[in-house]
Amino acid sequence: MKEKTDILILGAGPAGMISALTALKYYPDKQITVLKSVAKGVVPCGIPYMFSSLTDPEDNELDTTGLEKKRVRVHIDEAVTLERAKKTVLTLSGKEYSYEKLIVAVGSKPIVPPIPGIDKEGIYPILKDMEYLKQMVEKVRSGGNVLVIGGGFIGVEFADEVSKIPSCKVRLVEILPRLLSRSFDPEFSCEVEEKLRSRGVEVLTGRKVTAFLGDKKVTGARFENGEEFAADRVILGIGAVPNTELASLGGIELRKATGGIWVDEYMRTSDSDIFAVGDCAGKRDFYTHKDTSVMLASTATAEARIAGANLYSLKVVRENKGTIAVYSTYVDGLVLGSAGLTGYSADKEGFETITGSAEGMDKHPGKLPGSGKLKVKLIFSKQSGTLMGGQVSGGISAGEMINIIGMAIQQRVSVSELETLQMATHPFLTAAPTKYGIVVAAQDALSKMR
Amino acid sequence: MKEKTDILILGAGPAGMISALTALKYYPDKQITVLKSVAKGVVPCGIPYMFSSLTDPEDNELDTTGLEKKRVRVHIDEAVTLERAKKTVLTLSGKEYSYEKLIVAVGSKPIVPPIPGIDKEGIYPILKDMEYLKQMVEKVRSGGNVLVIGGGFIGVEFADEVSKIPSCKVRLVEILPRLLSRSFDPEFSCEVEEKLRSRGVEVLTGRKVTAFLGDKKVTGARFENGEEFAADRVILGIGAVPNTELASLGGIELRKATGGIWVDEYMRTSDSDIFAVGDCAGKRDFYTHKDTSVMLASTATAEARIAGANLYSLKVVRENKGTIAVYSTYVDGLVLGSAGLTGYSADKEGFETITGSAEGMDKHPGKLPGSGKLKVKLIFSKQSGTLMGGQVSGGISAGEMINIIGMAIQQRVSVSELETLQMATHPFLTAAPTKYGIVVAAQDALSKMR
Repeated sequence: MKEKTDILILGAGPAGMISALTALKYYPDKQITVLKSVAKGVVPCGIPYMFSSLTDPEDNELDTTGLEKKRVRVHIDEAVTLERAKKTVLTLSGKEYSYEKLIVAVGSKPIVPPIPGIDKEGIYPILKDMEYLKQMVEKVRSGGNVLVIGGGFIGVEFADEVSKIPSCKVRLVEILPRLLSRSFDPEFSCEVEEKLRSRGVEVLTGRKVTAFLGDKKVTGARFENGEEFAADRVILGIGAVPNTELASLGGIELRKATGGIWVDEYMRTSDSDIFAVGDCAGKRDFYTHKDTSVMLASTATAEARIAGANLYSLKVVRENKGTIAVYSTYVDGLVLGSAGLTGYSADKEGFETITGSAEGMDKHPGKLPGSGKLKVKLIFSKQSGTLMGGQVSGGISAGEMINIIGMAIQQRVSVSELETLQMATHPFLTAAPTKYGIVVAAQDALSKMR
Repeated sequence: MKEKTDILILGAGPAGMISALTALKYYPDKQITVLKSVAKGVVPCGIPYMFSSLTDPEDNELDTTGLEKKRVRVHIDEAVTLERAKKTVLTLSGKEYSYEKLIVAVGSKPIVPPIPGIDKEGIYPILKDMEYLKQMVEKVRSGGNVLVIGGGFIGVEFADEVSKIPSCKVRLVEILPRLLSRSFDPEFSCEVEEKLRSRGVEVLTGRKVTAFLGDKKVTGARFENGEEFAADRVILGIGAVPNTELASLGGIELRKATGGIWVDEYMRTSDSDIFAVGDCAGKRDFYTHKDTSVMLASTATAEARIAGANLYSLKVVRENKGTIAVYSTYVDGLVLGSAGLTGYSADKEGFETITGSAEGMDKHPGKLPGSGKLKVKLIFSKQSGTLMGGQVSGGISAGEMINIIGMAIQQRVSVSELETLQMATHPFLTAAPTKYGIVVAAQDALSKMR
């Protein structure tokens, strides 16, 4: 069966949805069709919270009915072949869609490492599919030993959430010596480790899984050092790779280092009628313009806005400054945020830096009810004084504080500008103006530059 | 008695303290002396919270012992005469201090309007003096009818706090038709009014007090419209004026429009050995460079850092971009923030603007425990697309969100840059990346510009 559409969007995750919504605004006369590979999608960053905080996992649905109300066609189907010469896409259900403009927003695929026994029942990669996740939730909620593999954001959040289920004993395994090491320096990683331990999670860093044990069903895992741990359920949170099969089949250029789809400043691929956005699209680093593999819903939606606006003509001129990673996470009340380079990643890349730190309370005076600790670290270029990265830990307010730092990095703000920043302070909301973390950390760095 | 010091700082509020701490860092060999006009000062923005949230009002002390530990001399005394030719200051206690560099950080004085009966017992202007405030707290905590005059930040915060004392009946009087009108547009003012009413505060807008009633002690107030209300206590929260008596006596130039002390880019007064910082120093508006009268501790501390660094030579070169007001306030869990121009103030100044708005939840999915509403309004220059102002209401996270907007204003960020902002989003901390308030409001504004 043949279908004709003006704008065809492959994928209905955050990148696909925002592409559609933006295209609707900029090109109101065009027919838009979205192909959704699963019947019900999920809010990606909400997945861990389906296991405990959300009583009903269905509350984490990424609902596309809003698109349909705005006359976007949403079909449950998946593209399998791309014929660029004919400007058509063939789907799993056998349909042929012709398009004027195509947006590839097919996301990423979880990494499933080739460990012996990885295909046993009870071992779960994270798929963005409501039906799959609902079954996983049911199993995990039934209790037992849960092994979470991977000490990045997903692994840490899963460990925290599953530890809230009283009948579960959680172990978190990380191959590197500490948790969240890609986004945080050691003084922040240790806060998360301490918090997880205080919740009864056994944190096993510097451990490599060499085999999963059991017959048909997983019963445990063996580590390289010979240790063995019982496991009724294993959750794989070790990252993802760009989903580029279709693009590759269609002969679209990929980026070499990361394998993402090559895109220009306006998210156009090597075929200028085809755009790629989100996890499947290649990213360039903000500091070096080298390839980088940041996969964040917030980056994806920013890219989708650029693509959606520029489909038929370049309406929104922009400098693609490159991607900085701006993350936050939440572990039982402890909030951690990271933006840009860490001390470790700056060193590794060869940047000469100076860091500044501040520790204080997140309200003032500190005796106000609900006050908690707040820690800020800023990383500056030693000679130019430009902000290159920052990390924050604290309570709820740290979640938006990292976005102040993210904004400052994107604007290439200098240490002197931060030292004399004009900001709102309030007893119930921030540190005192004399002790505002970002300003104090900037001052600390400045004093080291003198 | 004569005393000699290298750096003399008049005032030990946030501006004086940060001046001293900064000077210590930049000029470690100089002797610094701070004159403190009261035995015990207070954290200015914490004053309302001494009445209920802080069980012990003493917890709001602005402690200067930290300065003394760092070998700064702190004397309880007040300057009364400035003799610039001799480079000396005479004090209330009869001492004569000679200085090399002088920093005037003497703050502001509360406005006490010439209303008949204003000097009756039980009517309290807000003085930054622990002993005075402790007595005021004791009286207010004893209960009765409390009339708060002035619907700006101080008045609103006092009304909220005093309403937490069960034996108090609070009325808040504002001469203009709505609360917080200097910093917020009507759709935000009404949120505060609603919140205060829900706490049992009687909000009386558009009312002018023409007389305070009673003999020696206040018993009530009469309004211009003839209404009379009983009052056992009256709290005056109607603003302040720069404290420039000493400077004026010393023949230092003042700014005409606001009466603050004239200062250059580096906080130097018309006498280049004398600096002025904080509420007593004149400010220029960020948008027009006209005189403005913003009085914020955060502005004061930024100025103090500039002065402290540049006392003996101009070490920190900076562009004084002018002052933007970045405020936040907290009323019983409702947080409001404002940065830069409001719609009203932009119109009044003659700026042609476009506004964008967003309303959503502050967590995602919205069914997560503790989710609340979040509202963002952004104001852009219509032709240039530059961000000129913003307002936020929501929960705790709104307190730092206004600082993202403040940073963006100071960096003159454009609407397109905000539309493709890279930010951290997290289920427990922010809206979804597809619905992040600042981005959605920027998009809304952009769509109106097309």
